[in-house]
Amino acid sequence: MNRNVASRHVIVREIDRADQAVIDRLGEIGTASVHEAIGRVGYVGPHIRPIQRDTKVAGSAVTVLSHPGDNIMIHAAVEVCRPGDIMVVVTTAPSTHGMFGDLLAGSLTAHGVRALVIDAGVRDTADLRAMGFPVWSQHVSCQGTVKNTPGSVNVPVVLGGVTVQPGDVVCADDDGVVVVAREDAAWALDQSEARLAKEAATRARLDAGELGVDFYGLRAKLIEMGVEYVDRLE
Amino acid sequence: MNRNVASRHVIVREIDRADQAVIDRLGEIGTASVHEAIGRVGYVGPHIRPIQRDTKVAGSAVTVLSHPGDNIMIHAAVEVCRPGDIMVVVTTAPSTHGMFGDLLAGSLTAHGVRALVIDAGVRDTADLRAMGFPVWSQHVSCQGTVKNTPGSVNVPVVLGGVTVQPGDVVCADDDGVVVVAREDAAWALDQSEARLAKEAATRARLDAGELGVDFYGLRAKLIEMGVEYVDRLE
Amino acid sequence: MNRNVASRHVIVREIDRADQAVIDRLGEIGTASVHEAIGRVGYVGPHIRPIQRDTKVAGSAVTVLSHPGDNIMIHAAVEVCRPGDIMVVVTTAPSTHGMFGDLLAGSLTAHGVRALVIDAGVRDTADLRAMGFPVWSQHVSCQGTVKNTPGSVNVPVVLGGVTVQPGDVVCADDDGVVVVAREDAAWALDQSEARLAKEAATRARLDAGELGVDFYGLRAKLIEMGVEYVDRLE
Amino acid sequence: MNRNVASRHVIVREIDRADQAVIDRLGEIGTASVHEAIGRVGYVGPHIRPIQRDTKVAGSAVTVLSHPGDNIMIHAAVEVCRPGDIMVVVTTAPSTHGMFGDLLAGSLTAHGVRALVIDAGVRDTADLRAMGFPVWSQHVSCQGTVKNTPGSVNVPVVLGGVTVQPGDVVCADDDGVVVVAREDAAWALDQSEARLAKEAATRARLDAGELGVDFYGLRAKLIEMGVEYVDRLE
Amino acid sequence: MNRNVASRHVIVREIDRADQAVIDRLGEIGTASVHEAIGRVGYVGPHIRPIQRDTKVAGSAVTVLSHPGDNIMIHAAVEVCRPGDIMVVVTTAPSTHGMFGDLLAGSLTAHGVRALVIDAGVRDTADLRAMGFPVWSQHVSCQGTVKNTPGSVNVPVVLGGVTVQPGDVVCADDDGVVVVAREDAAWALDQSEARLAKEAATRARLDAGELGVDFYGLRAKLIEMGVEYVDRLE
Amino acid sequence: MNRNVASRHVIVREIDRADQAVIDRLGEIGTASVHEAIGRVGYVGPHIRPIQRDTKVAGSAVTVLSHPGDNIMIHAAVEVCRPGDIMVVVTTAPSTHGMFGDLLAGSLTAHGVRALVIDAGVRDTADLRAMGFPVWSQHVSCQGTVKNTPGSVNVPVVLGGVTVQPGDVVCADDDGVVVVAREDAAWALDQSEARLAKEAATRARLDAGELGVDFYGLRAKLIEMGVEYVDRLE
Repeated sequence: MNRNVASRHVIVREIDRADQAVIDRLGEIGTASVHEAIGRVGYVGPHIRPIQRDTKVAGSAVTVLSHPGDNIMIHAAVEVCRPGDIMVVVTTAPSTHGMFGDLLAGSLTAHGVRALVIDAGVRDTADLRAMGFPVWSQHVSCQGTVKNTPGSVNVPVVLGGVTVQPGDVVCADDDGVVVVAREDAAWALDQSEARLAKEAATRARLDAGELGVDFYGLRAKLIEMGVEYVDRLE
Repeated sequence: MNRNVASRHVIVREIDRADQAVIDRLGEIGTASVHEAIGRVGYVGPHIRPIQRDTKVAGSAVTVLSHPGDNIMIHAAVEVCRPGDIMVVVTTAPSTHGMFGDLLAGSLTAHGVRALVIDAGVRDTADLRAMGFPVWSQHVSCQGTVKNTPGSVNVPVVLGGVTVQPGDVVCADDDGVVVVAREDAAWALDQSEARLAKEAATRARLDAGELGVDFYGLRAKLIEMGVEYVDRLE
Repeated sequence: MNRNVASRHVIVREIDRADQAVIDRLGEIGTASVHEAIGRVGYVGPHIRPIQRDTKVAGSAVTVLSHPGDNIMIHAAVEVCRPGDIMVVVTTAPSTHGMFGDLLAGSLTAHGVRALVIDAGVRDTADLRAMGFPVWSQHVSCQGTVKNTPGSVNVPVVLGGVTVQPGDVVCADDDGVVVVAREDAAWALDQSEARLAKEAATRARLDAGELGVDFYGLRAKLIEMGVEYVDRLE
Repeated sequence: MNRNVASRHVIVREIDRADQAVIDRLGEIGTASVHEAIGRVGYVGPHIRPIQRDTKVAGSAVTVLSHPGDNIMIHAAVEVCRPGDIMVVVTTAPSTHGMFGDLLAGSLTAHGVRALVIDAGVRDTADLRAMGFPVWSQHVSCQGTVKNTPGSVNVPVVLGGVTVQPGDVVCADDDGVVVVAREDAAWALDQSEARLAKEAATRARLDAGELGVDFYGLRAKLIEMGVEYVDRLE
Repeated sequence: MNRNVASRHVIVREIDRADQAVIDRLGEIGTASVHEAIGRVGYVGPHIRPIQRDTKVAGSAVTVLSHPGDNIMIHAAVEVCRPGDIMVVVTTAPSTHGMFGDLLAGSLTAHGVRALVIDAGVRDTADLRAMGFPVWSQHVSCQGTVKNTPGSVNVPVVLGGVTVQPGDVVCADDDGVVVVAREDAAWALDQSEARLAKEAATRARLDAGELGVDFYGLRAKLIEMGVEYVDRLE
Repeated sequence: MNRNVASRHVIVREIDRADQAVIDRLGEIGTASVHEAIGRVGYVGPHIRPIQRDTKVAGSAVTVLSHPGDNIMIHAAVEVCRPGDIMVVVTTAPSTHGMFGDLLAGSLTAHGVRALVIDAGVRDTADLRAMGFPVWSQHVSCQGTVKNTPGSVNVPVVLGGVTVQPGDVVCADDDGVVVVAREDAAWALDQSEARLAKEAATRARLDAGELGVDFYGLRAKLIEMGVEYVDRLE
């Protein structure tokens, strides 16, 4: 499919997914470490926030492209989801509508979907937290939607500053949402595990009072950049 | 009063209110269901957020129109409140000031007021939560206010995208704030109860795995709108 | 140092601090009361928010001026911190980066630093809450930073709407962040204690149902400002 | 029609309008003077901006309530417009779409409509300026719309911070948009003319160097408010 | 290159471009018509605005990925530009810096580059207009940048809501910026020319007073959607 | 005066100013060059925008600190202005009000004031442009103000990200507003003239097609930072 040829609206039934064990472990590691390990990319931006606290999750992206204030394509997407997936909903223009609530969460739960990431709004947030269905969204809004305008399911979408392909690995926690390309998942896990090990060692030394400026060897760099140490400012 | 003739500043002592039992039940039902039941109207917008979680409330609007950063009219409004009311404070231009804090919350509590909805800021938020006085606001700010410029009490105001008449029913929970016209309250409750019943039946079927796309009969509509089902994207 | 002569990048090792007992007590009193007591100044604005709830703290400002998305100066600043300090990080232009996370929090904790205030973003927020290291920031973002561009430590900075001198007293709680000039700290505490006493008396009367409009003597002022009391609006 | 009962979508063919000569003169006077003359009300807010410069206009509001990104109701509204009207388009939730362009402007021009005010976006802005069709909008966007979801024509709407009734007088110029209630139009004109006369006299004196602080008698007020005059700041 | 593997920073010297005659004609047609013709996609959003008026242009995208407030990669990109290109600069996180000014514009002009599109800021805007070098940016800011942190040239980037591949066709005018996939350019031009012809016919009829609601056959659709025509609102 | 002791409201009659010839020349040079020359500081941020085009000006700051929506202190400040001054108005919290219009512009013109910089709104913008009185503001708004709450004149204020002392040199043009410390003015002019000379030489070479990457010696730096040159991306 050419990227800009959107005169077709499609629902794609089958997508490739990364290895589930890799996905699960990426979810445990958390977004900051994964993002850092893969070269500081994949972060969708600070406007997508969790409605709950202390939840970490990862899954395969089922992508939904919707008209603002219209959730017909979310309903259409449920049947192509598989257990372990995360639904990623993007609108064709900014929308604050509460496009998703407890009924859809029940439906997704019945189909094994792990979470929702949406660049518009959600509602029934108290119920969603009570149900244990995690959500990352741009808005919370009780405003309802219509079901009148077509869109697509499982096509590439842009979420914040990132392009998401169907089947990419979506990692989400209190710090936000990071997307890992499906074909990079195993590599990303290796990098992340290596980083975790390195961070543990660093943490032990910093917690013991060692200075990062020494530990990372920044003192010479600071001087080279022209930073002066002075005892007092006149 | 002509709408645009604001050369008068007034404090209106008596307003009509909806039936208290109806109001109380609307509060229990919650904003998303009420908003949906009455035709997807009355929502003030996602910028008005609760400072607490898991609180649902409804009450009769006592409206306050204030100059930015000036809370003299909030003080003036206390004595026209009745038990069961919700104070609705709107500023004549955007304001981030913390125009309301624990002292005023104590005063409102003494007069039976159930909550505050304000399109500016509040402060003493930790204390307000500890007191159990619920607040929905646009900002949290410790910045104090003056008491120098007149406004009005119990005149029609615009809160977000909604016109609020004194005595309208204000419903508020984690999803935001919905305003129901006083004279529509009983009808709104009927609609809302009917919707709750219908939602319960829908929920049972969706939770059992039935697809919304089948349940709502959307499959034919999707095809009619030109959406194609494809097995894989080339 | 002339204010606008920033061709020099400096790390200032020694700064003056206010009396620690005064600082500690200002932290207990909280931002709204301190801000109010000192003449409604020093508030940095509603965009700097806590990542945790129900934490009150005060400390001496160690200021850091950084390039957006570059945290080398945060590392450089650790060694000039003393127990009881609060690190204040400002960027030379708006930044959403997660410039601070659990490793730096461990390092600051090891050096006795009480909190971070940053006008950019932080990450590892679940870990920071678990560690009990309090943070006030403009953003939460898992996006990492580089260490390539020089800045300064312990120079005057502008945080929101306030100029912060190194050694000023930073007070922070759920309502935001207030800065008290170091040389005003003792005076500010006197004013704050006086205000607390006055507020306690006021609170008792308002909680008992007395009206603020009477208590504060506002009724005559309202009339003088042209506000009319009317029984009903026609 | 009860305000919150929006289950009906209606197109209202006939509305009352103010006297055309009054409307025309209000347009010449300009928004700042009209707004000031009627008690500093009716201003819709700084987010609605002209796409052209140096155009002043007034007309009777034909209101359109649309779903975001859907302009079917704009097309439906054309035939209820009369020469001298201004079309006022509001969406049920925030929208950035370019919901209006040169084709619709040609259509409105053919029907004598004087201008468009829209809280969403417009496109073909270079053409609109070349055509001399004035527009005030929140956004400029080339993004197109669909025609799938119903709305209403000539019902009360909320535009920014103001409720607009069909037939109200809309005044617009470089400073923004002010709405005058239809039934207040003649009174508003009287007030505005009086203000213009007074402003002319004031202007002559201020332009001659007289101080506003003397002219408006503010010196005593400043002292009473506790403002001190000092020669130099220590 | 895997999308998320950004540990490499690269400058790609050679990219494929669309046919120049096709590009030039797309530029003349303008963004709204092109965007509409290709299925309402490719629009980057209303936050990217021109600093000049009445300029229409198209060119092949040379993409630059920069650290916020650092323009070293813009300098690095100049030599890979060819006459007829448009430079597209994206930052790895939001930036308001004036990353581009008259010196770089002179350099790009010398190399035949037609315009700049940047999601950060530009400066020397009066000079840029005087030089006739067109710019679309998110911000205008005189704030200067450093040259310390690596990025990439001619890699895929996300600009607003759109993924841009190097060599894609960038169309820009007063309504904003639209991106057409390189491989779709000829098809997009066919679609756009067809749309222009159709629009001309429509325009003639609408300008003559024919109603869009009749012309587009919307009357039946309105009724089907439940919209009622009423003479007057009670 | 201690910075945080704002219980006093003062009008300071006399302030020191920089040399007028130095000020005038800084105004001609423009903000981007001055800002760059003095070390990339002093820029107040992209939210303060001119209401006119192609105007460059500099003057001595007369500072005004106002309550939101209250312009009594602007009136009070007129008499302390001297020919060549620029009035700088800051509010104690964000304000969108049109706090300044043609009457005040006439008054300031009569007293020789060159321009207004305000972090709130202005009105009568068409008249202000016609009068040739230049303004930089955050908002344009026809909304009027009151005259009820005290503030100060000629005290230090924070404007965007910069502290402004009375008498500092304010430079403003199409790129925004830069503040130069009064005591640095002569040095800033020297630096700026030197930069202009250097820029002229650079411009000549870049305009002739020489690459900045060679001219600035960035090629080696790019390689050292790990940037790879590749012919084509696989």
